[in-house]
Amino acid sequence: MRAVDVIMKKRSGFALSRQEIEFLIGGYVAGSIPDYQVSAWAMAVFFRGMTPEETGALTETMLRSGSTIDLSGIPGPFVDKHSTGGVGDKTSLVLAPMAAALGIRDPMMSGRALGHTGGTLDKLESIPGYRTNLTVPEFRSILARDGFAMTGQTKEIVPADRLLYALRDVTGTVESIPLITASILSKKVAEGAESLVFDVKFGSGAFMKDASDAEKLARSLVDTGAAMGKRIVALLTDMNEPLGRMVGNFLEVEESLDCLEGKGPEDLMEVTLELGARMAVLGGKAKNVAEGRRLCESAIASGEAKRLFFANIESQGGDAVKFLSLRGSYRSAHEGAVEAEGDGFVAALDAWKIGLAGVTLGVGRNRTEDAVAPDVGVQILKKSGEPVRRGEKVMRVWAKDEASLDAALPLLRSAVSVTAAPPEKRILVLKEIAST
Amino acid sequence: MRAVDVIMKKRSGFALSRQEIEFLIGGYVAGSIPDYQVSAWAMAVFFRGMTPEETGALTETMLRSGSTIDLSGIPGPFVDKHSTGGVGDKTSLVLAPMAAALGIRDPMMSGRALGHTGGTLDKLESIPGYRTNLTVPEFRSILARDGFAMTGQTKEIVPADRLLYALRDVTGTVESIPLITASILSKKVAEGAESLVFDVKFGSGAFMKDASDAEKLARSLVDTGAAMGKRIVALLTDMNEPLGRMVGNFLEVEESLDCLEGKGPEDLMEVTLELGARMAVLGGKAKNVAEGRRLCESAIASGEAKRLFFANIESQGGDAVKFLSLRGSYRSAHEGAVEAEGDGFVAALDAWKIGLAGVTLGVGRNRTEDAVAPDVGVQILKKSGEPVRRGEKVMRVWAKDEASLDAALPLLRSAVSVTAAPPEKRILVLKEIAST
Repeated sequence: MRAVDVIMKKRSGFALSRQEIEFLIGGYVAGSIPDYQVSAWAMAVFFRGMTPEETGALTETMLRSGSTIDLSGIPGPFVDKHSTGGVGDKTSLVLAPMAAALGIRDPMMSGRALGHTGGTLDKLESIPGYRTNLTVPEFRSILARDGFAMTGQTKEIVPADRLLYALRDVTGTVESIPLITASILSKKVAEGAESLVFDVKFGSGAFMKDASDAEKLARSLVDTGAAMGKRIVALLTDMNEPLGRMVGNFLEVEESLDCLEGKGPEDLMEVTLELGARMAVLGGKAKNVAEGRRLCESAIASGEAKRLFFANIESQGGDAVKFLSLRGSYRSAHEGAVEAEGDGFVAALDAWKIGLAGVTLGVGRNRTEDAVAPDVGVQILKKSGEPVRRGEKVMRVWAKDEASLDAALPLLRSAVSVTAAPPEKRILVLKEIAST
Repeated sequence: MRAVDVIMKKRSGFALSRQEIEFLIGGYVAGSIPDYQVSAWAMAVFFRGMTPEETGALTETMLRSGSTIDLSGIPGPFVDKHSTGGVGDKTSLVLAPMAAALGIRDPMMSGRALGHTGGTLDKLESIPGYRTNLTVPEFRSILARDGFAMTGQTKEIVPADRLLYALRDVTGTVESIPLITASILSKKVAEGAESLVFDVKFGSGAFMKDASDAEKLARSLVDTGAAMGKRIVALLTDMNEPLGRMVGNFLEVEESLDCLEGKGPEDLMEVTLELGARMAVLGGKAKNVAEGRRLCESAIASGEAKRLFFANIESQGGDAVKFLSLRGSYRSAHEGAVEAEGDGFVAALDAWKIGLAGVTLGVGRNRTEDAVAPDVGVQILKKSGEPVRRGEKVMRVWAKDEASLDAALPLLRSAVSVTAAPPEKRILVLKEIAST
């Protein structure tokens, strides 16, 4: 078998066999197939796509390129949620303890902020002392004790994805639904989840701007996962505006705690409860979504989800007392505000622009090696649909320094639009995609 | 400027600017842009194509990656012919002295056999002593004296093409019309030709199987060349059957001499004269194609083309006496034949199969580092349209050894088809493409 023939077969629009995919990706990981052949293949996949069988074979090949987390000996069910990335999306921090309160175990391996989207690990690390570099034994024992554990991927997990993603990132081949599917699914299966809820976001602040593209990705994730024997549900959710009122690292941990205390913002709670309800159903704790949602609400009302949130902070080295003492005050001194430029209603808060401004403020990063700041970000005082008066503050802003503040403010101002009439109410959860 | 943005722009179907093309290709040659980005870009070009302006910018960028042959001080006109490659195609060996006899100078830089197609350099090197590795001063002085010189590309000529072609060859990106155009044109312009006749072949033994694809390439060559200030004409010619009766290295030099002696086979002479007539017109030696053709015929009839052929052999180190002594007898001892399997007319002689069999016999090579044999090949005794009887020889075959002979014969047999009725006469020159 020759790599060039595999490339030409895909280029010509034919489906590759499992053996051909294993040859190419296995050879790439082993170093026998060079990156210039894999990048040409990835571009051919971008144009030609893949069948569900090919995507499944690619996912399994990538999965087998490294080790998987062994959860044997820990009672399940193991259910995880994965988001395709957004702005102000802290649902993971609420869902993990909420699911754990229902007796579900959530083995959560998360990523860092990159580009305009935030990262769960960066948010968690703003809690004083909190460690996200757990060893596998630590991950197992915390998962067993608290019902969830939150860590970064170990380097033994899906090495093929690290190689392939780095290559795709510099060769214009990121935006391919089968390649995205295999990248996401291989990692999620490797972490030990049996069932998965995908939050596939669409809109300005999402990776997929159009709901129709997001739906294609959701369908690909669900079908490929089902072909691999996993139970998968995907929700298409709106990411035209940041979720909740906080965009930042510590700011978002604070808002997650608000949610667990029953005082989370409406849009954030709605998406969180819809995702949590599916986790409850997939984990066998609820017969249907309505029951799942009620169970999630009870886990918050009873305080059990909040108790597990704090238990996990302690388990992962965090200082809960210090965290609580910082609550509401851990803000950079470099503060500014965005004011409404007219009377009316907030019609839109562009998530993409707010996410990009976040990078400037110090919430996120453009390169993986950059550092982030814990105490910066944006507080949205007026969400879309809320009335404002000219000059009234729409956002409070904290930056790592004055220069960053000055750079971010014009972008944040351009993210706000105010109209005379109230905007139509956004549909937060557009659609559910389940296996057919 | 970032290479990934240039790749994504092309991937998304936009035309690249001259600056973007120079950035990418210049960076590749300089080593600052890695091959994995260039291969992804080439695959995007395969799918998205290029505008004539982009193809021209790519050709010029490649041209400027190395040195060009300085023909100043030598009187022109400089006209060359280039074929996209075929089986039994020895027109270059006839055209160069024929054009020289008309007072045209042909600065010919040729290639070697690769895959099923033959190579001019390999054919010439079957002449005892003949050198195809001329220095630039040798090339200039032989061109000035004999009216033509035939050599391989120096490594200073279009280094970008050597790099890019090697990369395309292993990444499934050879078959892209703009990339082929830039590869061919950059080299032909670098060798010093002012006007060019392209023999764009179609059919089983050609690179382009369909005449419509060949026409696209011809159109691209003509338009891009015209945009660069060159005078270009392209002919679409049939390569379903080998040209002439000889497929081999020394065999084809012999047949070229037959042509120069006025006894060349009909199909070979037809294509040669049609190409030569265009060279005469482009070189300003004839007012129209009919006059050009008459001039070419006269150059043969007068013996002047043959005289220049031998003058060139001596100029390039060849031993004309030894060459003539080998004529008709320089054949490997490993000989076989292909016989007709029925009575009727030869309907087809599949050029692709005969070309592939040639590689086995030792005429050509699969890898550039392989050696070829001078004294092997195929003599076609019955061309398509000629009557045969069952058991009558259709081809004589000479191989480098018995194993190769045994391997090639079944393929050669499968190349022959015999039908009861005579086949329709092939149209050898399908179309002329000139600048609009």
